[in-house]
Formats: sequence, C-alpha cells, structure tokens
Amino acid sequence: MTLDRIKFLLKNKDYTRLKTELLQEHQADIAEFINELDAKTSLMVFRLLPKDVAANVFAYLAPESRSQILLQSEETELHEILDELFFDDKIDFLEEMPANVVKRILRNSSEAERKLINLFLNYPENTAGSLMTIELVDLKKEMTVSEALEKIRRVAPNRETIYTCYVTDATRYLEGILSLRDLVIASPEQKLETIMRKKIISVSTLDDKEYVADLIKKYDLIAIPVTDTENRLVGIITVDDIVDVIEDESTEDIHKMASIGEIDVDLQEASPMFLTKKRLPWLLILVFVNIFSGLGIALFEETLQTVIALVFFLPLLIDSAGNAGSQSATLIIRALALGEIKIDDWLELLKKELVVSLALGLSMAAAVSAVGFVRGGLDLAIVTSLSMAAVVLVGSTIGLCLPFLLSKFQLDPATASGPLVTSIADIAGVIIYFSIASWYYGI
Amino acid sequence: MTLDRIKFLLKNKDYTRLKTELLQEHQADIAEFINELDAKTSLMVFRLLPKDVAANVFAYLAPESRSQILLQSEETELHEILDELFFDDKIDFLEEMPANVVKRILRNSSEAERKLINLFLNYPENTAGSLMTIELVDLKKEMTVSEALEKIRRVAPNRETIYTCYVTDATRYLEGILSLRDLVIASPEQKLETIMRKKIISVSTLDDKEYVADLIKKYDLIAIPVTDTENRLVGIITVDDIVDVIEDESTEDIHKMASIGEIDVDLQEASPMFLTKKRLPWLLILVFVNIFSGLGIALFEETLQTVIALVFFLPLLIDSAGNAGSQSATLIIRALALGEIKIDDWLELLKKELVVSLALGLSMAAAVSAVGFVRGGLDLAIVTSLSMAAVVLVGSTIGLCLPFLLSKFQLDPATASGPLVTSIADIAGVIIYFSIASWYYGI
Repeated sequence: MTLDRIKFLLKNKDYTRLKTELLQEHQADIAEFINELDAKTSLMVFRLLPKDVAANVFAYLAPESRSQILLQSEETELHEILDELFFDDKIDFLEEMPANVVKRILRNSSEAERKLINLFLNYPENTAGSLMTIELVDLKKEMTVSEALEKIRRVAPNRETIYTCYVTDATRYLEGILSLRDLVIASPEQKLETIMRKKIISVSTLDDKEYVADLIKKYDLIAIPVTDTENRLVGIITVDDIVDVIEDESTEDIHKMASIGEIDVDLQEASPMFLTKKRLPWLLILVFVNIFSGLGIALFEETLQTVIALVFFLPLLIDSAGNAGSQSATLIIRALALGEIKIDDWLELLKKELVVSLALGLSMAAAVSAVGFVRGGLDLAIVTSLSMAAVVLVGSTIGLCLPFLLSKFQLDPATASGPLVTSIADIAGVIIYFSIASWYYGI
Repeated sequence: MTLDRIKFLLKNKDYTRLKTELLQEHQADIAEFINELDAKTSLMVFRLLPKDVAANVFAYLAPESRSQILLQSEETELHEILDELFFDDKIDFLEEMPANVVKRILRNSSEAERKLINLFLNYPENTAGSLMTIELVDLKKEMTVSEALEKIRRVAPNRETIYTCYVTDATRYLEGILSLRDLVIASPEQKLETIMRKKIISVSTLDDKEYVADLIKKYDLIAIPVTDTENRLVGIITVDDIVDVIEDESTEDIHKMASIGEIDVDLQEASPMFLTKKRLPWLLILVFVNIFSGLGIALFEETLQTVIALVFFLPLLIDSAGNAGSQSATLIIRALALGEIKIDDWLELLKKELVVSLALGLSMAAAVSAVGFVRGGLDLAIVTSLSMAAVVLVGSTIGLCLPFLLSKFQLDPATASGPLVTSIADIAGVIIYFSIASWYYGI
C-alpha cells in the first residue's frame, strides 16, 4: 500500500476497502502513513482502525500526530485508546502532553491507576523506573509447568513479553526467573520451583538507563526485571526499548562531542530558539578560551612583525594540532563509553599515543617542510617542520588526557569535544610555534 | 564470585569447588574472568567447564583469550568446542582466525559443513549474510499447533531462538511466520496454515546490515528471516546481534566525524602502526586544505602589517567559524543517520540554520566586541564584531550544506567531519575577516 493509494481511497470515500487494505499493513507502517497525512484526514484514517490495532498504531505515531489526534478526539474515544496502550507507552505519552491534558486524563482514571501513573511519572528521566512497563507474566513457585503454561496462554494477549516469566511470592518478592524456552522444554508436571533460575540479573528503579542497556547487551537478554529497594518486582524493561536507549546515548555523545547541549527532539521539530540555546553556551565559552591564543600571539608580536611570513602557517599549524587532538580525544571518549577501556588504562594508552603522534607529527612535518621551503626557503622549512612535529605531539597528548581527566573528576568525558580540544591545542600550538621561530631567528 | 577467589582456589588446587562456584555464574561473567587470567590458567579454568557451557563461554570470550585457548588446545578438544557453538558464532570465530587455522578446522569438518562454512565466509562483511545463523525452528503449514509445539520442545536446546518460527515448504520457500506467542495462544488442533502470518518482513543475504538494524528497530522484532533471491529461507538474524550492529555503526560514524578511518578492533588491541595508518591520511589532506587559509592571509599581508593587532583575533574568529560549522554539520549528519531527515529537507533546514546562526553570530559578536574594544578601541571593536557575525553565519552554512552535498553525491555524510568543516570554515573566515578589516581601514 502507498500513501497515494490511501489518498485515492479517501477521495473516493471507499472506507471499507481502505480499512481492509490498511489492516494488511504492519502497525508501524500504518503509523507512518498517518504521520504523513494532515490533521483532518489523519483522524479519519485513525478512526477506521479497530480499538486494539488503534492503540498499537498510536504507540508508533510521531508526537505531533499524537497530539493532533488527541486534540480532535472525544474524551471517551481518548480513553478507549489509552486503556489499550501498554503501560510504558501510556507513560511516555503522558510525559509528552501538557499538564492540563494529563490532569484531564488522570481525573478520569480509577484511583488505583491514578496512583500508579503518578508513581511512574515521578521516576526521574534516564532511570530504569522511567522506562519500565508493568505488563509482565508473574508465576508462583508452587505451580507446575502445565499450570504455568495455562496461565501464560490466558494472559499472553495483554503482556508486553511472555518470553521471560517471573516467579514472585505473596509480597511480590522476586524469587526466580523462567524463560518460555525453559517452560517449553520442561516436562508438564515439574514444579516451577525446581526449574526456575534463582541467580537473577535485575536492576533497581533508580538505576541509570545506560546501566540497564549494558546488562541487556552483556547477557543478551530479551527483558530485565526492575525491583525496588526490597527486591520486590515492580516492572520489566524489554530489549526493544533498550535499542532506542543505545541509540539515544550515542546521539547524546555525538552532540556533546560537537559542543552541543542535550537535544531530545527530532531536528525538524526543534525551534530555532531551542537550537540557539543548545549551541550558544559552549560557543561563548570557546570564544573566551580562544582569547588565550590571541594573548599567545600578542606575546610574540615582535617576532611576527620581523618575519610576517610566519602568519601564513598559523592556521595550518594550529589546526593540525587541533585535528590530531580531536582524533585522540574521540578515540578515548568512544572507547570509554563502550567500556573497552577504563580510567586506569590511561598510562598504557598515553605511551601508545606518544608513539602514534610522533609518527603522525613526523609525517606531517615532512609535508609542511616542502610548503615552507617554497614560501621562505630553508629557514622557514626548518621552523615550520619542527613546529609541526611538536604541535601534533602536544595536541594529541592533550586530546588523550582531557577525557581521562574529566572522567577522573566524575564529569562526562564527551565534554572533551573536538571544539574544546581544538581550542586548547591552539593555545599550545601558538606558543610552541612562535617560541621555536623566535629561538631560531634569534629574536 | 571474584577474580581473587578464583586465583585463591587455583592456588589451593581446589578444582571441584572452583568448578561448582564458577557454574553459579552467568556465562558472560565466566568469560570475563577468563579474559583476566594469563594464558596457562585461562586454559586450566576453561577445561573445568562442561562442554555445552564451554561453548557458550567461548562465544563470549575476547578474541585474544580465544586464540590463547585455541593455540594450546588439542585438535579434538577444539572440535568439541566448535561443534557446540551456534553457527553464527562459529563463523565469527573463523573470520578472526589466521588462514592456516581455518584450513585445519575445515579439513576436519564434514563435507556438508565445510560447504556451508565456505558459503558463509564468503558473504561480504556488513551484509545480512555475514550476520545470520542457521539454527532456526522451521515448521510445515500442514502441522497442527500441538505438533508444532512438540517439535519446538524437541529442538529448542539447539536453536538460537524459538520465539519466532518459520513455515517453509519442501523447497525451503518461506511461506509464513509464527511467534511462539501466537502458538501458545492458539488452540492445539488448529493448523499452522490458518494462523501463520503471511505478510513477512524479511531481508536478503546481500542486504546491508544497517538496513537489517533499521527493520528490527522499526518493527520491534526479536528475529528477522534472511532469504535468498528466490525467497528461500537461509537463516535468521536475532536482535542481540543487531544491538552490536547499531553500536558499531555509531562508532564508525563518530570516528569518521573526527577524521579517523574505520577501526574494527578494540582500542587497546590496536597497534600504533595500525592507528597511525587510520589517522594520517585525513590529517595530511587537511594540511593541504589549510594551505588555502595561509594563501588567504598572504593576500592581505599589507593589511596585517599595517594593523598587526588584527592577528590577535585570528585564532578566535576562525575557530568560532569552525565550531559553529562543526555543530551544524554534526546535527545534520546524525539526523541523516537516524533517518530523522532526508536530503530533500535541506532547504527547510537551511532556512532554520540561517535564523539560528544569525542569533549565534550576533551574540558572539557582542562578546568579541568587548574584547576588541579593550585591545584596540572602537575601531577594532567594530571590525571584530562585524567579522564574528559574518564568519559564524558562513561557517554554520558550510557545516549545514556539506553533509547534504556529500549525500547527494552518494558519499557518506559523516565525511563532513568537524576537522574538515573547520578547515573549510577557516579559509572563509580568513578572507571575510581581512576583507572587512581592509575595507574598514581603507587599506
């Protein structure tokens, strides 16, 4: 089915056929079609869907389409959709909505659900609590395998996953875990107690979502249980939500590495005002860092006036220091984020970096010496190539050390962004270059 | 269990206890312990494990530990491990090993397996074929639900996943898909034909792994079938392998954005030689790009000699242009990678960028005018602030356009790295700054 086909059927008011053809599509694809339609037709198409499909499609919709539909819907219709949503999708949705809408929805919920929603809305962003859902399969250890399978069969349609099941006692204390695979393999009359795994990998509600992602990756899990401080089961987090977390974490790091603040919306939705706010602070800080490069130059004004040809190589040399520094900072930041290296490895990596940056510096010195020779003969060739080797060595070392230093002080290593490393390497570059030149020319 | 405990038990030769305690741990954790041990003890601990556990632990081991164990093992022992591995892990392992080891292993395999291994080793890197495994549950459409469950029960221990099952005909043509959830909910006497889903989301062996990741993310799948050109089922890819793909893709982009070549090993394993090779090419290219900044300066040598104070602001202005440009390039590159925007959106985003960069430029101009006033009075304040506004505007625009241009020419937009954008923005910055100064001072 294509968008044009949908528009064609809408134009012809052939709603029966439209409904039939739509229901052939995956719910994620139906959501994509609705995202492309305007406010009026999107609601029209949405209303064609049966209630259970509508809820799933709603969970896949883009935030703007959701609010469009919400704003035009009757209260009762809205409640029907919300009732069908999995709990984590409902919470995500409520988090996006303005406070007055949330109030309206809460007013119409049962008291038990209202309490639960409020509890979930209060888990800080980025915690396991804010990601989890409550639709899980819980079993009792006295059950037999066939009783367990019978229960799973009964509740399956309303559970986010049935592939991992949780054994709890009367107080919801988490006693064991069973995969559906374990249950399928076991013989029907076995008691769950004898086959459940008691060594449980779990997280607590306030654990950071990055930590959750690390566990799911490490142990190849489909879902992980979330417990409170007394090890009572409160929810689960499934791998599909973690895939999004992993991608969001990378995006956050990538943005931070370009000195951009945290952006949690699509680029197309972000207003110019919002983007300016996220970009300006670091740019201003860097202006002030760069003043020190200027002061470095001012120190050597005499040298510069004597050999004005030196300015020709200024951008080239300071950029090279910055580029080499960005490279080493980036390698370290990413390896730290992936857990490939730890803070304690800094010395070993520094030794390697010295070898690498010496090789880089010498190669680049050879390249720049040729340019130096053409512009100013042997003298300039010597000064520029010596400077190049030195600034690349120093720039790389700064780039390597900065992320480790930040980590050491419990700051995010990704703050050692390309622009920051470049600016700091520039200061070092200016001073090294003009010092070598002053010494060589005896000024 | 801790590493110290293991060493303690090894020292006391208490292997029975060591084995018992080890087997309490998750296989991923056992592998981590073995990674930390030296060559001799790692083999000793590995040999304590029962065959089926050993194979899973082996799959979790770091490449160095694997080769350590491999080099010290008897041929028969090695085969026992390899036989227990899931097929995708075996292929991964063979891809890491030197050619002579692979030959030795192939020589000792059955002809059918040898053919299969060779086939899999020949799928190009980054394709679906290179990621897939063959241990899947295949069913026939004539089966009843209870027959299907019986088969699943029988084969479950040797299948990578049993949560998605595949219905094929005698020629392995893929006719339908069933989740274990569907089977559990259905009544036992139903024929698979009546409940299987015929609208199948699949990939072909040569599809790019990024495309596979996109589908798994979009449809929240646990596994996706891989088919050949005639839609015959050849394997499946599970979500846990895709989690790694997503992370690898981000790493590749992050490295590329810092002008680093593709690095497919851990930072700690990479040799200095290897790292130099990955970092040098772009650094050298950028040296030559930066020569144009030098040429820009040479054009204005007269201006510079007249007002030498202008050099003070050179790093500051060109860095600001580069930083603003890096920000906009990074935003665009990441949004393109995530599919948030498409090439056709460039005009809309350019318009927004002009607003944002004007706001950024004016704010930064205000900051620099204060510094300009202190260093050189009103004249310098005017020249530097005008230049700042202009270079930020131009730098941002370059940063925004470059990734789109690269995409347009089928190149990877991430090549528009911070360093490259900075170098290009520098050239523009030098020319804009000195042009404004020359004009203002009437030189």
